[in-house]
Amino acid sequence: MVARNPRYGDVVRSSFARQGLMAHLGAELTQVEPGSVEVRVRSRPELTQQHGFLHAGVTTSVVDSACGCAALSLMPAGSEVVSVEFKINLLAPARGHELVARGRVLRAGRTITVCQGDAYALTDEGEVHCATMTATMFRVEAPEPDGAA
Amino acid sequence: MVARNPRYGDVVRSSFARQGLMAHLGAELTQVEPGSVEVRVRSRPELTQQHGFLHAGVTTSVVDSACGCAALSLMPAGSEVVSVEFKINLLAPARGHELVARGRVLRAGRTITVCQGDAYALTDEGEVHCATMTATMFRVEAPEPDGAA
Amino acid sequence: MVARNPRYGDVVRSSFARQGLMAHLGAELTQVEPGSVEVRVRSRPELTQQHGFLHAGVTTSVVDSACGCAALSLMPAGSEVVSVEFKINLLAPARGHELVARGRVLRAGRTITVCQGDAYALTDEGEVHCATMTATMFRVEAPEPDGAA
Amino acid sequence: MVARNPRYGDVVRSSFARQGLMAHLGAELTQVEPGSVEVRVRSRPELTQQHGFLHAGVTTSVVDSACGCAALSLMPAGSEVVSVEFKINLLAPARGHELVARGRVLRAGRTITVCQGDAYALTDEGEVHCATMTATMFRVEAPEPDGAA
Repeated sequence: MVARNPRYGDVVRSSFARQGLMAHLGAELTQVEPGSVEVRVRSRPELTQQHGFLHAGVTTSVVDSACGCAALSLMPAGSEVVSVEFKINLLAPARGHELVARGRVLRAGRTITVCQGDAYALTDEGEVHCATMTATMFRVEAPEPDGAA
Repeated sequence: MVARNPRYGDVVRSSFARQGLMAHLGAELTQVEPGSVEVRVRSRPELTQQHGFLHAGVTTSVVDSACGCAALSLMPAGSEVVSVEFKINLLAPARGHELVARGRVLRAGRTITVCQGDAYALTDEGEVHCATMTATMFRVEAPEPDGAA
Repeated sequence: MVARNPRYGDVVRSSFARQGLMAHLGAELTQVEPGSVEVRVRSRPELTQQHGFLHAGVTTSVVDSACGCAALSLMPAGSEVVSVEFKINLLAPARGHELVARGRVLRAGRTITVCQGDAYALTDEGEVHCATMTATMFRVEAPEPDGAA
Repeated sequence: MVARNPRYGDVVRSSFARQGLMAHLGAELTQVEPGSVEVRVRSRPELTQQHGFLHAGVTTSVVDSACGCAALSLMPAGSEVVSVEFKINLLAPARGHELVARGRVLRAGRTITVCQGDAYALTDEGEVHCATMTATMFRVEAPEPDGAA
């Protein structure tokens, strides 16, 4: 896949950095390629569900962000991205010390981009595939920065 | 809908209280009826996406928890609930000062319960329907408490 | 909900009539209101799955068509509709002599319309809610008819 | 992946053959491996949507059947499979002379199996990836055959 915006990396990192939730969860953007993004989050008690594993909402949040960033990486300059919908299947409990979310673009259209995302729990026994998502992302024209008009 | 466990309210409140993420997001369980649960979360900068609205991951987390609790409220004593999958459509930006998530059971089976969840943003102009979810929940036998065997 | 195109009924009926699959399944468009459409199909051996009930694919096909038609009914003249995605939960076996699918618009945007669809099996004991769908529909400009340019 | 039932091929072929809808659509089971199944259907006017491409309902029906058969291929003897839910993203119009649906198991549990399915349109220019599905399948004990009790 080829990025149309040569500054796609800066655009994605800036968008991720403005997501207050990612900082609140302690999630980090660890890889950005055209059409492919990785986000990681470390397990801690504030992120759990009732059995002590990572809450499905945490898994979903970071996979959604990875998918949105993957979509954004292929969009022309001046674009922003919003989630239209996503569906996630939780394949295994998200136990372990860290969760790795990977989002990649399946199809990039003019307004709609479809992504697949997967989450892997890093345990002492290796990576466990714990969730898979498909997401529909929508491109919106970014508002002009102040003074640009 | 009729609860099979007369202590369903305690079971649901205890399950919600053990979800570390709910406290971390500042979400509160505000209503529990058989097959129907309400969760609320106030907007704040730690919960936003890149445009300053509530992150889709927050909306999803609280609607998922509302659905899981609604499913649990109809299960027999000694049950726990895990999410198998869910899908959410984001209908409008989650702006406003508070988000109300409502989960209700569509069909309660022996092992599988299907729920519908909706999220409403409370704004100065009134409630805005900002997301709708369908979720599949799975019943698991709770492990015996310590010493019970 | 208010139709922007006063000829919405003709537009929907014409779109449905051009869907070869609907005739092949024996499905009929039985109601068209702005933002709300009903489709019915009678049970017969050609439409079954391996246990003799209506195949999930039939249920999905008619609910998808009902949702697409509901979305189309609110679009301006000169629009066509395509399905971006849908998700269906199968709540109960589709037994009985007839299936009624109802689609309605949850949110109509300029390019994206989100619909909810439900299917009910008509049995000797009454209506059984057997499936629920959420669908994302996309508006495309219809090509000009021959000679119009 | 390893089949627990050495007769998995017969079980899958028999289940597919009893699906009246597959014959009505002209779909054929073209490959059965443990945890992986292929179904094909040729394009014809009876299977179209309003623009002359294969109807999303046809694509969904054959991908759902491929996923259900893939799930069944890994189940122990005496099992049957029903669809709990599925979600499909339609990536491109299903044009071309034939559609190939491939279903494979992502995770096989004791009662729940999660599958991924994909559909490819065969055109003169090659394969086009036109849809992707995730599906949740449920295992039920098959009723004893007549006289077995």
